[in-house]
Amino acid sequence: MSDTNLYRLNSKEVAKATEEWLMKRGVNKGQIGQLVMLLQKDYFPELTLDECIENVEAVLAKREVQNAVLTGIQLDMLAEEGKLLPPLQNMIWNDEGLYGCDEILALSIVNVYGSIGLTNFGYVDKLKPGILKKLNDRNDNQIHTFLDDIVGAIAAAASSRIAHRKQAEREARAEGGGSV
Amino acid sequence: MSDTNLYRLNSKEVAKATEEWLMKRGVNKGQIGQLVMLLQKDYFPELTLDECIENVEAVLAKREVQNAVLTGIQLDMLAEEGKLLPPLQNMIWNDEGLYGCDEILALSIVNVYGSIGLTNFGYVDKLKPGILKKLNDRNDNQIHTFLDDIVGAIAAAASSRIAHRKQAEREARAEGGGSV
Amino acid sequence: MSDTNLYRLNSKEVAKATEEWLMKRGVNKGQIGQLVMLLQKDYFPELTLDECIENVEAVLAKREVQNAVLTGIQLDMLAEEGKLLPPLQNMIWNDEGLYGCDEILALSIVNVYGSIGLTNFGYVDKLKPGILKKLNDRNDNQIHTFLDDIVGAIAAAASSRIAHRKQAEREARAEGGGSV
Amino acid sequence: MSDTNLYRLNSKEVAKATEEWLMKRGVNKGQIGQLVMLLQKDYFPELTLDECIENVEAVLAKREVQNAVLTGIQLDMLAEEGKLLPPLQNMIWNDEGLYGCDEILALSIVNVYGSIGLTNFGYVDKLKPGILKKLNDRNDNQIHTFLDDIVGAIAAAASSRIAHRKQAEREARAEGGGSV
Repeated sequence: MSDTNLYRLNSKEVAKATEEWLMKRGVNKGQIGQLVMLLQKDYFPELTLDECIENVEAVLAKREVQNAVLTGIQLDMLAEEGKLLPPLQNMIWNDEGLYGCDEILALSIVNVYGSIGLTNFGYVDKLKPGILKKLNDRNDNQIHTFLDDIVGAIAAAASSRIAHRKQAEREARAEGGGSV
Repeated sequence: MSDTNLYRLNSKEVAKATEEWLMKRGVNKGQIGQLVMLLQKDYFPELTLDECIENVEAVLAKREVQNAVLTGIQLDMLAEEGKLLPPLQNMIWNDEGLYGCDEILALSIVNVYGSIGLTNFGYVDKLKPGILKKLNDRNDNQIHTFLDDIVGAIAAAASSRIAHRKQAEREARAEGGGSV
Repeated sequence: MSDTNLYRLNSKEVAKATEEWLMKRGVNKGQIGQLVMLLQKDYFPELTLDECIENVEAVLAKREVQNAVLTGIQLDMLAEEGKLLPPLQNMIWNDEGLYGCDEILALSIVNVYGSIGLTNFGYVDKLKPGILKKLNDRNDNQIHTFLDDIVGAIAAAASSRIAHRKQAEREARAEGGGSV
Repeated sequence: MSDTNLYRLNSKEVAKATEEWLMKRGVNKGQIGQLVMLLQKDYFPELTLDECIENVEAVLAKREVQNAVLTGIQLDMLAEEGKLLPPLQNMIWNDEGLYGCDEILALSIVNVYGSIGLTNFGYVDKLKPGILKKLNDRNDNQIHTFLDDIVGAIAAAASSRIAHRKQAEREARAEGGGSV
């Protein structure tokens, strides 16, 4: 490879593209934050939507997450345009039950904050609250076979991050106050 | 190693111990079958409890599943007896939120029938229907930190197996009948 | 959805497309079988290449595996044609070190026969013997960012399957002969 | 639960126990750092052992990693003392080929820094360089069925962390210098 063609990954471009494509596909951070709130409000009654959104942003700052988001959106868009190889086209277009590559990419997002997020991912993926319902109704002629699992996984990962943070805060307070 | 000490794994013993220990810890196949029914009845209205139990048995026949069941039950029992290293003892005894090794073992069970079971696992792990509620109430002074996730995972894996089988049956019928 | 448009997955078509696309992308079962042989011959000196290929075929008969193969080849081909979203195009074209979605799809293949295949996958993915070297040399102007990991994963899964089978054979012999 | 029994996880104790038990079982951070060096020196010739050890420390600071280390060491020690349920005792004592729960816990460590570490994990787990060889020779009458996979996984995760850091440094330099 000649020096002029030398590939230099630019992390900022990857992060920016992730944010832009989520928006273009109809998902904003506030909507993901609301999923996080739904998952966590019973455990942390004082949790605010702003805090939830901050944690969503932290999840979206991870390269592993950006990779999965871009790859999933790409496959959704190609299915929409009918440009995939025949059986794959059918499977993704129909969000077929035996096609699990969407869950696999989602799992790679959840795992970045550890396995404790698995339950939360499964729960929202089954019930499809809020933005997940909208992504699934197909009223907009869009295919979101990957994106709906990915958005649920981002919410689950942000929930795991909150669980870790809240524990750290509790311990810091306990130390400061001399108790425990 | 001398020949007399030569280790020879006996798969039947592993399978038998798995079945016995599930029973001793208060879980039978019918109860896991009912979880499967709950997860699958909306998709396959003709599904019977017997079919669910058959699929649970097929899941339990896998070595990977037996390994996870025995390892999880072992850790639960040691926690019950107070025999674990201090911080681990506390984490497993209290089913602590930031301890995720129970979900990890459960995931290894789900994965044997592919990622399509992830959603079902998370759903029952959150809602704790049937036997999962009983495993979580701690009325019997038993610790089931691992077992409750493991039982949910077995039900999720059996559900995946059913989804694969039903598709195969549908295609066989379609072929036989000349339609499609 | 009207009845005439009703989606009916045809498993045979998925299986056939998987086999055809592997061939079109330059990979045959014999080459994957040779990777299996390399991984297993020290443990089972009597293993034949035919047996290795049979086990590769059994792995390729799994829907989860077919899904991953088709999805990975699709992304490779689109990268080759320059048709992906900008940062994704760069990452897959260059097989970029921080892009891990190829390993994620590969892992979903390995997991179908349990976690015991992880080591074998990592080993061939690092050393790139046989067909894996060819897939990586880029002499043919093809991009195989996904396919090389996928082929290594198929070989690792087939190796796990052999380990399970050989143990079953050993136990059957022991029983038949009355020993152990 | 009454207030006096209230469980309060103390993260510092978990971290301290992890470090102590690794030492007691014969593993120090320098030895894990050497595995990291082996895995990364070809990509980053300027990498020092101190940097490798710093990255090992960052991996060990994660709760998910600490959980897996403590759980794995616990099972190794119980196998050593002969205190496990019969078939599990045999499987862990003999580091049996079809028992994969050790790889599963290891995978949960690797995943904390994303799937890009899978290859490195498999590679050292197969070749057993340095400390991994020592953990496997059984000269000390100790069982390290879990610990050897766990140590390899920590080294693989630290390698992934280095790959991410080095990329960030490269981009910071590029920006500072005005080039690219």
